Amino acid sequence: MKKRVGQFLIDEIAKQGVDKIFGVPGDFNLSFLDDIEAHQTIDWVGNTNELNASYAADGYARIHGLAAMVTTFGVGELSAVNGIAGSFAERVPVIQITGGPTTAVEKAGSYVHHSLGNGQFDDYQKMYAHITAAQTVLSEENALIEVPRMIKVALEEKRPVHIHLPIDIAMREIEIPDNVGDAQATEEKDLSNIVEKVTKKLHDAKQVTLIVGHEINSFALQHEVQTVAERLNLPVAQLSLGKSAFNEESTQYMGMYDGEVAETAIRDYVDGSDLVLTLGAKLTDSATAGFSQKFPDEAVMMLNHHQVKIGDYETTEPTLAELIEVLKMIDFRYNGDFPQYQWPSASQADDVLNDAPLTQENYFKLMQTFVRKGDVILAEQGTSFFGAYNLALEASTTFIGQPLWGSIGYTLPSTLGTLLAAPQRRHVLLIGDGSLQLTAQEMSTMIRQKLNPVVFIINNEGYTVEKKIHGETAEYNNIQTWDYKLLPALFGNKAIPTYDVRTTNELKATMDRIEAQPNTMHVVEVHMDVLDAPETLDAISKAFAAQNE
Amino acid sequence: MKKRVGQFLIDEIAKQGVDKIFGVPGDFNLSFLDDIEAHQTIDWVGNTNELNASYAADGYARIHGLAAMVTTFGVGELSAVNGIAGSFAERVPVIQITGGPTTAVEKAGSYVHHSLGNGQFDDYQKMYAHITAAQTVLSEENALIEVPRMIKVALEEKRPVHIHLPIDIAMREIEIPDNVGDAQATEEKDLSNIVEKVTKKLHDAKQVTLIVGHEINSFALQHEVQTVAERLNLPVAQLSLGKSAFNEESTQYMGMYDGEVAETAIRDYVDGSDLVLTLGAKLTDSATAGFSQKFPDEAVMMLNHHQVKIGDYETTEPTLAELIEVLKMIDFRYNGDFPQYQWPSASQADDVLNDAPLTQENYFKLMQTFVRKGDVILAEQGTSFFGAYNLALEASTTFIGQPLWGSIGYTLPSTLGTLLAAPQRRHVLLIGDGSLQLTAQEMSTMIRQKLNPVVFIINNEGYTVEKKIHGETAEYNNIQTWDYKLLPALFGNKAIPTYDVRTTNELKATMDRIEAQPNTMHVVEVHMDVLDAPETLDAISKAFAAQNE
Repeated sequence: MKKRVGQFLIDEIAKQGVDKIFGVPGDFNLSFLDDIEAHQTIDWVGNTNELNASYAADGYARIHGLAAMVTTFGVGELSAVNGIAGSFAERVPVIQITGGPTTAVEKAGSYVHHSLGNGQFDDYQKMYAHITAAQTVLSEENALIEVPRMIKVALEEKRPVHIHLPIDIAMREIEIPDNVGDAQATEEKDLSNIVEKVTKKLHDAKQVTLIVGHEINSFALQHEVQTVAERLNLPVAQLSLGKSAFNEESTQYMGMYDGEVAETAIRDYVDGSDLVLTLGAKLTDSATAGFSQKFPDEAVMMLNHHQVKIGDYETTEPTLAELIEVLKMIDFRYNGDFPQYQWPSASQADDVLNDAPLTQENYFKLMQTFVRKGDVILAEQGTSFFGAYNLALEASTTFIGQPLWGSIGYTLPSTLGTLLAAPQRRHVLLIGDGSLQLTAQEMSTMIRQKLNPVVFIINNEGYTVEKKIHGETAEYNNIQTWDYKLLPALFGNKAIPTYDVRTTNELKATMDRIEAQPNTMHVVEVHMDVLDAPETLDAISKAFAAQNE
Repeated sequence: MKKRVGQFLIDEIAKQGVDKIFGVPGDFNLSFLDDIEAHQTIDWVGNTNELNASYAADGYARIHGLAAMVTTFGVGELSAVNGIAGSFAERVPVIQITGGPTTAVEKAGSYVHHSLGNGQFDDYQKMYAHITAAQTVLSEENALIEVPRMIKVALEEKRPVHIHLPIDIAMREIEIPDNVGDAQATEEKDLSNIVEKVTKKLHDAKQVTLIVGHEINSFALQHEVQTVAERLNLPVAQLSLGKSAFNEESTQYMGMYDGEVAETAIRDYVDGSDLVLTLGAKLTDSATAGFSQKFPDEAVMMLNHHQVKIGDYETTEPTLAELIEVLKMIDFRYNGDFPQYQWPSASQADDVLNDAPLTQENYFKLMQTFVRKGDVILAEQGTSFFGAYNLALEASTTFIGQPLWGSIGYTLPSTLGTLLAAPQRRHVLLIGDGSLQLTAQEMSTMIRQKLNPVVFIINNEGYTVEKKIHGETAEYNNIQTWDYKLLPALFGNKAIPTYDVRTTNELKATMDRIEAQPNTMHVVEVHMDVLDAPETLDAISKAFAAQNE
């Protein structure tokens, strides 16, 4: 059958179950947007700007497994690069589609708006090559090959791809064969070599730790990892970069490992291990309190997607899924002791209810009672993230942060994306004032889309995470104080309940009111001391400061 | 004397009279920010996000002649690329400084936050190479050469440069010789060849037009151009890309030329010219209503900065200033007739005062009475720009738009920059709702800095400029309606007067109240019909739509 190239692209994306496409209109994409708006199963979600669109797409993809967004040439696509680079770093598959000038305009080297005014049209594509796993310029001739290839790379690498779509090409009709994009059989790889090496390592080790990380989430391999851990009886630690990779209710689970700031029992166990199997995990500075792990580099056996290191042996061949298949084939059962994860007591929050000024410590004690099975929790890179990653979360709860890329402002638009990907779940956004200011307008899109997140905004008058690293009293770490409770009214809905919270009693009462009213957005302004921070942040910020010497 | 590398960089920037540095803190730039905060003549201006910082720096540079901004590695610098690319396209010199991880971290290839997590550290620098005129990675060894070189390139090319500053290097002390950065004598170029060719062209022509453009503003050569035009008796037209390049009060001035939509007299004269001398000007699609000029390409003699085309002769050697020196040497005086610019009558606004719904046409008739000598007027790429570029402006009034790059949302943060560059002048921002939503939070920084712009926000429920091109009733061209008058209160100052305007009478009354209260910000929400637009936009949008076929 015949389809326009743009329609074909949309249909192929829709085949992956994607039902929203994010972005901002611009004259080089408008007629393509007609085909999105007309699509049976895909809705257009207009964002307030392109950076926010890229964050929203990232959030959607973290829940759904793939996302797509559309910008216009130059001005639009370049505003999105920070978000797309974050998706690249943390392995989130986002298809970034740029509507471009017609092939005729490009061929003529015309001085058109959104170009650099020099007759060149490929600079932005070259910039994207650094932060995407594949790039293409669509044409009538290559669309049948390139569209399926882009989607395949995004799904296989769990990384963004960049599609440049000249607007005349989007409108051009091509004949689509019935078997287009059918997967070709992939060759079976011989992984016996790796099975053997891993088996030997495990048998030789006295004390073994399995550290799981963010790639498990990217590839949605949580169940497989749990199966492997249980079969081999491996003790498991999670990193903050990848929390949700492991079922915290499993008996294999020890807890969060974040180097020197980890709970004593887990820290001692992991640091004392002579084999640390990192699976889909990266020991980044933010995940390890500034590389403060005490186990030697030689203890690490790295099994990452296309990045394997077992002693002196290195290969980039196997995928993460194949590596987990390897682990399933291993003949081994660990028989060492290891610490069990200690779930917080239900009453810990009751003990701190009072009218004294709210502290970060008590904020998270109450948050522990508020979060519930099935929630999607987004924690912004600041006090919110460093407090929240130690929350104990039941299975099927999703935790989202961005500790490797660490772009402040990310979580608010990302929450728009998670809300649209899983509208039946409750979404809780934990964010601070400094971060919120970067991307605040995306709350407007949440209201426009009639979505109901619970938003906790910590008002502590500035970038506390920076103050902890350097410049505790420096003016550059302060911000303008906003009246955050005006946000819903500004964005067109005065009926959204807003709250001021200054004590644990007020926080508890607010949480009760939120529970009683599930069918509305809630915006809570939480006042806390400027320099109050979760313990983990205190330690990690010291490590970051030392790293900058 | 000894200085830290960071101090040296700041001092060299300060030598250019720059007294503000824009940006957002991040842990890889904090200790460098200490040196900015401690500087005698430079103030740190913290922005709400990095894109806004880049726009603010652009606005500051358009008034001051140079600007500087600081971001952190990765997340920060990549958020700024759209703004920096705009500065590149429209020739605005902005020094973009990225605080990076230490050389030790980079050498070790560590997995640190804000990196792509792959041990590589030069991807962002390579991306910046496409949108900056020069790039450097500072070291103790090269700082004495590279810092002056970066500033020199920015000033000579009027384009952004990118400085990557590892945070340990910023803190390293180096010995600064007294003669550092002293300008070397530049070789005199022999331009007699060009003088001869231009002279011949002028003498051979029957009907001559001088079209001046944005480069005149970038290089601040307005006075020189006026001198040349008067001496040679050349009739002058301005492009919307570069309005303010010519004194509209000069007797040489004919008016704005925008192709088929220009006033009949000027359109006929320019289109009928057999020699069109474009000086520092680019005939872009947005400046010419989609390349609708009727004079043949062969009539154009292009004298741009490093881009000269006289008949078959081309050279990239001369600078714009040198080309104007060439024109000063020409022995020629034009003796043809040409149309004189018709200043609008003072009473045109009185005739339209009534209580009928406000139209775009009447909005700009009243705006003509509101703007006054010395104002800085910023007009956002939408109905605001396409209406405002036809305002008649007295000498020493500055008009700022961004019609080549055309990034919506640009003008609001840019106004922050112009306000800080010329605090004694009145700054008038003309913007629409769709554009404002992209960058609205920068109004918070205006309030924090106690600045007093006059802000007119057109509320016409969406992207009217896009609707005019394509998708007049499409949902994707609509936006969420905000209560714009809440912006000042949200951002911490309820005392700022806000206004609702729906008729010419209300607009007139509001303008009178603004005049009466010069020492405060004013925020005016102007309600106009969804599809009402200035005549020029109607024509240009049709041309853009045709160009996309």
